[in-house]
Amino acid sequence: FKRNIRLKNLSVVGIGSTIFGQHKSTSIIELAKQAANAAVMDAGIDKTQIGALYVGNFVSGPLNGQEVLGGILADSLGLGAIPATKVEGACASGGIAFRHACLSVAAGLTDCAIAIGVEKMTHENTIVVTEALNSALDQDIDGKAGHTFPSLYGLAWQLHTKRYGTNRSQVSAVVKKNKKAGLKNPLAQMGTILSEDDILNSRLISDPLRLFDCCPVTDGASAVIITKVENAKYAEAPISVLATVQTSGSPHIPTGNDPISFQATEIASHQALQIAGITRQDISLIELHDCFSIAEIIDIEDLGFIAAGHAASWAAEGRTDSAGDLPINPSGGLISKGHPVGATGIGQIYEVCKQLRGIHPNQVRDAKIGLTHNVGGCGVTCSVSILANPD
Amino acid sequence: FKRNIRLKNLSVVGIGSTIFGQHKSTSIIELAKQAANAAVMDAGIDKTQIGALYVGNFVSGPLNGQEVLGGILADSLGLGAIPATKVEGACASGGIAFRHACLSVAAGLTDCAIAIGVEKMTHENTIVVTEALNSALDQDIDGKAGHTFPSLYGLAWQLHTKRYGTNRSQVSAVVKKNKKAGLKNPLAQMGTILSEDDILNSRLISDPLRLFDCCPVTDGASAVIITKVENAKYAEAPISVLATVQTSGSPHIPTGNDPISFQATEIASHQALQIAGITRQDISLIELHDCFSIAEIIDIEDLGFIAAGHAASWAAEGRTDSAGDLPINPSGGLISKGHPVGATGIGQIYEVCKQLRGIHPNQVRDAKIGLTHNVGGCGVTCSVSILANPD
Repeated sequence: FKRNIRLKNLSVVGIGSTIFGQHKSTSIIELAKQAANAAVMDAGIDKTQIGALYVGNFVSGPLNGQEVLGGILADSLGLGAIPATKVEGACASGGIAFRHACLSVAAGLTDCAIAIGVEKMTHENTIVVTEALNSALDQDIDGKAGHTFPSLYGLAWQLHTKRYGTNRSQVSAVVKKNKKAGLKNPLAQMGTILSEDDILNSRLISDPLRLFDCCPVTDGASAVIITKVENAKYAEAPISVLATVQTSGSPHIPTGNDPISFQATEIASHQALQIAGITRQDISLIELHDCFSIAEIIDIEDLGFIAAGHAASWAAEGRTDSAGDLPINPSGGLISKGHPVGATGIGQIYEVCKQLRGIHPNQVRDAKIGLTHNVGGCGVTCSVSILANPD
Repeated sequence: FKRNIRLKNLSVVGIGSTIFGQHKSTSIIELAKQAANAAVMDAGIDKTQIGALYVGNFVSGPLNGQEVLGGILADSLGLGAIPATKVEGACASGGIAFRHACLSVAAGLTDCAIAIGVEKMTHENTIVVTEALNSALDQDIDGKAGHTFPSLYGLAWQLHTKRYGTNRSQVSAVVKKNKKAGLKNPLAQMGTILSEDDILNSRLISDPLRLFDCCPVTDGASAVIITKVENAKYAEAPISVLATVQTSGSPHIPTGNDPISFQATEIASHQALQIAGITRQDISLIELHDCFSIAEIIDIEDLGFIAAGHAASWAAEGRTDSAGDLPINPSGGLISKGHPVGATGIGQIYEVCKQLRGIHPNQVRDAKIGLTHNVGGCGVTCSVSILANPD
């Protein structure tokens, strides 16, 4: 995997995003175009410089009756006959799109690529959406057992509590932190100040998960433009790509080796840090995949930044706040922003770039290097990227 | 696009495929595994050598409730934590998967990659399948107009007839040729000897398309293993990859510049020949995307092998038979094999490799170089690859 090392010569030179929320009267293609055009404008490039397009998307087929997003977007954005591809890896589709856009530049196929993430979900009812999201389960095994993602993450929480004593109040600290961070983020739809009672009194979804523990079903799109470092030097605020890796793992929580730890995350974190040539101490902030509150705890332990069993108390002690020892999800995360599935991974890159440019609404002080973590299903696929301010 | 040139150092060293037909009691994951395991066995490699996996698939979400095929296949094939990605480009998904597996080796990320194509469709009724296939239309435009692919290709035929005088009897020659070729191909489900009356008496689908003009809805999977030339020398019959390109185009037949010509095909053909450094005269045979009989005529004209308006008479004169001047679809094509959408592009690579190994059931004499053409929707995305016998 160390062959990824040539990715170090890449920069993100443009970022764009729609608000994450409800966009019922906007088509999925139109949503993606809004984000793409914003990224092109931010980069200050001419569209014709773009030589490859990747779209991260999960369920546009079942929810929008729309596939072949790559070709349709290349055509409707006026990008010409360039290769344009939808990549799908469940909830990690966005991170996978980013990696492939990086690869196409790193491999010398083009000097400039665009990665777009998009999902449109809120127009459908909960049953249809749940069925679509369940396509990230192995239908030969877990699907037949009647699992859903809330039930699997509820189970993971129960096991985490059994093993480490993780309690409701500690997990609520994650919810309160991310909901509060969302208040200041104009892209986040669910920012608010919550008390522990608010959380405790919210509807039970899958014991012990309550409504406020879950990211909302969301529409949205994000996009980023990648180019070679030598072409980025004239951009206003280029951000270096130190690493972007993609891994696979077992899709089966109930039968996996350890139901409260995703090996795909552990390996991706290790590989990304090795490729970037840095240590965990060099990371200023992390945007990770908090599809449920408990997921933030599982993820940061898998990423190796907090020892297993300790992340919940770190959250309770405020050490993962944007002003804490290890800022996690200063954007508000999926819990505040929502989870337009294919867009989420690109949205994380967007948020980290804003931090590294020093212009984030919840700015982490002296942010130099940021890490993104985007995971699909229960660890069946994972993407980790590391970005840096080149100054 | 000439930067693709490094792809010349790649070989296909293993091929595998299920029969194309009905596999109602086999899951989509199981189908893909069968093809993948056959390709691994054919290559004589150890699975652990595979460092990247791509799956071409179009509608596993709506038809099988199964996504994240990449991660699930990497896990269930025992390939470890390697990057594993589903790529989707409607009917060209297979060709796109092949290109990405080639890229991952060419870019130096791994020495060995697997490309799998799979679709499972026959368990659903025609309305559900038609709706799923229609997701290759732009739902903001053509979808709203009520088009379907049979209606669009029926329209294309009418326009071809108006401009060039293409007649039923000439198009029937394509059907008879491909149905006959399928008789000898053990992977083809619809081989038969048809008279012109048989075709004329078959059910009208979308004037002038009749049942025998249309490829059947099909289940199936194909897989190929790609490695660097230097690693391929110990393989029994390595086939060189001279070029593999991917293009985008307008999805709109009714509003496109020319409704009976797909620019994505024209550009892909031109690029692939340039990258391979060969001329059309060097090509021994072509496997192209005959989703409908008229598509074979449109495709070969777009590919630039027969002047516009002449392909129909070439077919009628037998010049595109496997023993003719320009053998087209000696496998039987989509019309005889069927069109398990995501598998089709990889299935074409499989057939061409058999030809170049000299072991095809409809062997083209002195086959040295073969071309595959896989197109999505009405030209919204296209993949063209050129393979050669290295001897």
